[in-house]
Amino acid sequence: MYFCGVKEVKSISSTQNPLIKKILLLKEKSRERKKTGLFVVEGVREIELAQKGGYTIKTLLFSPEIASSFSSNPISKNPTIEYIQLSKSVYEKLAHRGTTEGILALVEGKEHPLENLQFKNPNPLVLVAEAPEKPGNIGALLRTADAAAIDAVLIANPRSDLYNPNIIRSSVGCVFTTPVGMGSTEEILQYLKHKSITIYCAALTASKNYVECNFQGGSAIVVGTEASGLSETWLQHSDQNIIIPMQGEIDSMNVSVSAAILIFEAKRQRGY
Amino acid sequence: MYFCGVKEVKSISSTQNPLIKKILLLKEKSRERKKTGLFVVEGVREIELAQKGGYTIKTLLFSPEIASSFSSNPISKNPTIEYIQLSKSVYEKLAHRGTTEGILALVEGKEHPLENLQFKNPNPLVLVAEAPEKPGNIGALLRTADAAAIDAVLIANPRSDLYNPNIIRSSVGCVFTTPVGMGSTEEILQYLKHKSITIYCAALTASKNYVECNFQGGSAIVVGTEASGLSETWLQHSDQNIIIPMQGEIDSMNVSVSAAILIFEAKRQRGY
Repeated sequence: MYFCGVKEVKSISSTQNPLIKKILLLKEKSRERKKTGLFVVEGVREIELAQKGGYTIKTLLFSPEIASSFSSNPISKNPTIEYIQLSKSVYEKLAHRGTTEGILALVEGKEHPLENLQFKNPNPLVLVAEAPEKPGNIGALLRTADAAAIDAVLIANPRSDLYNPNIIRSSVGCVFTTPVGMGSTEEILQYLKHKSITIYCAALTASKNYVECNFQGGSAIVVGTEASGLSETWLQHSDQNIIIPMQGEIDSMNVSVSAAILIFEAKRQRGY
Repeated sequence: MYFCGVKEVKSISSTQNPLIKKILLLKEKSRERKKTGLFVVEGVREIELAQKGGYTIKTLLFSPEIASSFSSNPISKNPTIEYIQLSKSVYEKLAHRGTTEGILALVEGKEHPLENLQFKNPNPLVLVAEAPEKPGNIGALLRTADAAAIDAVLIANPRSDLYNPNIIRSSVGCVFTTPVGMGSTEEILQYLKHKSITIYCAALTASKNYVECNFQGGSAIVVGTEASGLSETWLQHSDQNIIIPMQGEIDSMNVSVSAAILIFEAKRQRGY
């Protein structure tokens, strides 16, 4: 089991322990995450991806009873990390998952200013999501962005921080490895214009079939919410509105499904 | 309000009422749905789509207090439908949704044998999902199938009935209007072979980039589960394994996202 080399490990067996209470707060409250600069990551793969994404792990909490049934060896012993052993019941109080891996981490958050983004690709492909509502949708977008290895995901007018447990979970940890920029719609518009990236807004009006567009130059695919679509500001500054023709009974698709169709059409045109 | 023409309406105000208990059971238990041949549909649009899909509505239950704030007029008065008025608290006990519309229906289920399917298209495009695990994924597949107006969704070795409330909800009612066939993997394979439909299995091995395939002839796009992919039986009978090249940190996408990318590539090739 992967913690066997770790000595002098603290142990917590009471759910009334202040650290346990703090972790529960960090999971639930965006405010608490902002105040402390910390967030919670659960699961082996997610913690690995956080490390890969350059995040600093402060504390690793594990239940030996649960974790011992998992054979992977992801966490190298690290003197800068505090290791804390939890009783099974305390872990289960903290953990979200049914099929849980017995490990979670307290991790330092990052800022995501647009100016930190660096594109290796001279013709970057980026996804912009305006004010996405559901953490699950943001996670799904990040997962697709990872699979397509696009250059960045930009979140305009975010309604929550990036470290909501549902975003982490639904992104399967891709939130840590996909380049993310956050800003207001105005800031992101200005950024895209400055970088000469063509703005393609997914919209229902004045729109061209997406397969007739050329996404080989620097391209931003911009999607709004399922409920209300994109704001007027985006539509006014759009270089080209695009649409996925729908021929069924209902006139909408899940935003993460639409985004994936658009992104992978761009990938197809770019020859992967 | 749309029930004003309905006279002699029964009224239920106790959650202990046997019908209320039966409805709760129908929502929770596939077994109960199979036994009675009935299932529960919630929401105006979903009930409309069930009617459009030729389903027979037996009973309409509504809370005037809640439904009166919705202005649509979807349900024509029908002497074969039993109308029952619910108190707000009884309705809330039955309803899933937070933003609920105050209306639900008891509807007669259908069988979905393959031989009932009729393709207008001489080169049909069908989606096959083998043993999908999560009702939410099945719903998302049906929603995409509706948007693309594909010829059918075939569910191989289904793990649940089609009328799970989560399937209905996540399909936004498309479960009622999309042609669905259910059967064992062997039955569906035989069916596809008999119809001379080319079988494209989404798989990781011996696979061709999906954009290099020609989906203009009769095509079945076959997807497995996120956890374990497709069974050997499918892979052995595949005409062509296909893959969506992934270039990120993780090697999987949500099954409904993958299916949408494949289906819409086929749609692109077919000129919509």
